[in-house]
Amino acid sequence: MLIGEVVGSVVATQKDPQLESHKLLVVQVRSHENQPRDQYVIAVDSVGAGPGDLVLYATGSSARQTNITKDKPCDAVVMAIVDSWDVSGKNVYEKWSGA
Amino acid sequence: MLIGEVVGSVVATQKDPQLESHKLLVVQVRSHENQPRDQYVIAVDSVGAGPGDLVLYATGSSARQTNITKDKPCDAVVMAIVDSWDVSGKNVYEKWSGA
Amino acid sequence: MLIGEVVGSVVATQKDPQLESHKLLVVQVRSHENQPRDQYVIAVDSVGAGPGDLVLYATGSSARQTNITKDKPCDAVVMAIVDSWDVSGKNVYEKWSGA
Amino acid sequence: MLIGEVVGSVVATQKDPQLESHKLLVVQVRSHENQPRDQYVIAVDSVGAGPGDLVLYATGSSARQTNITKDKPCDAVVMAIVDSWDVSGKNVYEKWSGA
Amino acid sequence: MLIGEVVGSVVATQKDPQLESHKLLVVQVRSHENQPRDQYVIAVDSVGAGPGDLVLYATGSSARQTNITKDKPCDAVVMAIVDSWDVSGKNVYEKWSGA
Repeated sequence: MLIGEVVGSVVATQKDPQLESHKLLVVQVRSHENQPRDQYVIAVDSVGAGPGDLVLYATGSSARQTNITKDKPCDAVVMAIVDSWDVSGKNVYEKWSGA
Repeated sequence: MLIGEVVGSVVATQKDPQLESHKLLVVQVRSHENQPRDQYVIAVDSVGAGPGDLVLYATGSSARQTNITKDKPCDAVVMAIVDSWDVSGKNVYEKWSGA
Repeated sequence: MLIGEVVGSVVATQKDPQLESHKLLVVQVRSHENQPRDQYVIAVDSVGAGPGDLVLYATGSSARQTNITKDKPCDAVVMAIVDSWDVSGKNVYEKWSGA
Repeated sequence: MLIGEVVGSVVATQKDPQLESHKLLVVQVRSHENQPRDQYVIAVDSVGAGPGDLVLYATGSSARQTNITKDKPCDAVVMAIVDSWDVSGKNVYEKWSGA
Repeated sequence: MLIGEVVGSVVATQKDPQLESHKLLVVQVRSHENQPRDQYVIAVDSVGAGPGDLVLYATGSSARQTNITKDKPCDAVVMAIVDSWDVSGKNVYEKWSGA
């Protein structure tokens, strides 16, 4: 998995019928130091993620192991919303830091 | 999935019999900011996409989860035509902007 | 799939028994504008491709969906010989241009 | 597989139910000469790895072949803790060098 | 598949039980012109390869299609030892050139 930020979403009316009613998120990849990278993926949402959320996404056949993506032509899924992470003992990101 | 533009197509008479009569599209990858990248893929069309369309394509085993690619030696499929997408609250692409 | 040129072949006597008698091609990747790239793959041939042919190859589990690669430890297969392709309405490659 | 160092971990309360109670490690990739790379992966731990450990991780569908990751939306798993390795006849890393 | 040189091996006592007694090789990737690349993979050996051998390795689910890697958390396998290869009609590598 990689960490990314949900920065937008895609509208696509004409698509494989198995993907009807699935939210397609634009996820920009973050480094493990939480720096934005010039890399993105369009991922199906399986956890109710929204704009600004940092998330984990899985790719490849692993992206079809959630209830909503099973057997579908989907190669990337958001399967977790990140609360926080640390690197070398230091907190890199804290979702609720302002709460 | 990634976003790409359909920029052409490939003709191949001598091919695996399972791929007979499938349209093979040349898809040039776009960034999430809609900039063309020096990256492409040859993908089977499953949604009737044509030249100039911006599309979503899936790769790997996920590319075999459409009706027309099932069990075939195909590692990339166009499974949606993009109508629009937004990044950071701004519209990046609108198919029917001129309509 | 990507487009590549068959530039050579590999001889390997000591190999997984399932790969006995399969031709192993050295395929150098081409860009969608038909420029050679500093990227290659060793692929099993499933269509009778030879030196100088431009071909399509599939990777990953999709490379095991031909009759001759099924269930074998092979992650790349040549599954089509390219006759021609076009980009932005212009012919980029024509196999029989000299005929 | 690649070699990486466990440099941290991720907390994610809202996630696919199949991933409940799994440790999510931040693994920074090492070169085969043991130099840190600007590349990482978030991997499920299957062997009790901790901060500072050098580990092997597997990706893709292979990441779902451990008892704890089977059929889960997980595309990277730590499946070994490295004791040592050598390159060109020289020891590159020795876990217990100080013992 | 790609071509690589076996440059070393990894010792890992604490690992997924399915990988017990498997040799883990450090394989440095070669270009198709036989130049070493700054890229490597840790692969399970299935053909008795040793230090200095040039080999073919397969990745992803294809790496689990040998007898010894079946259903194991292994994403790379050495499945052939290279005797020789040619590019553009010229011999690039010959294992027994000194014999």
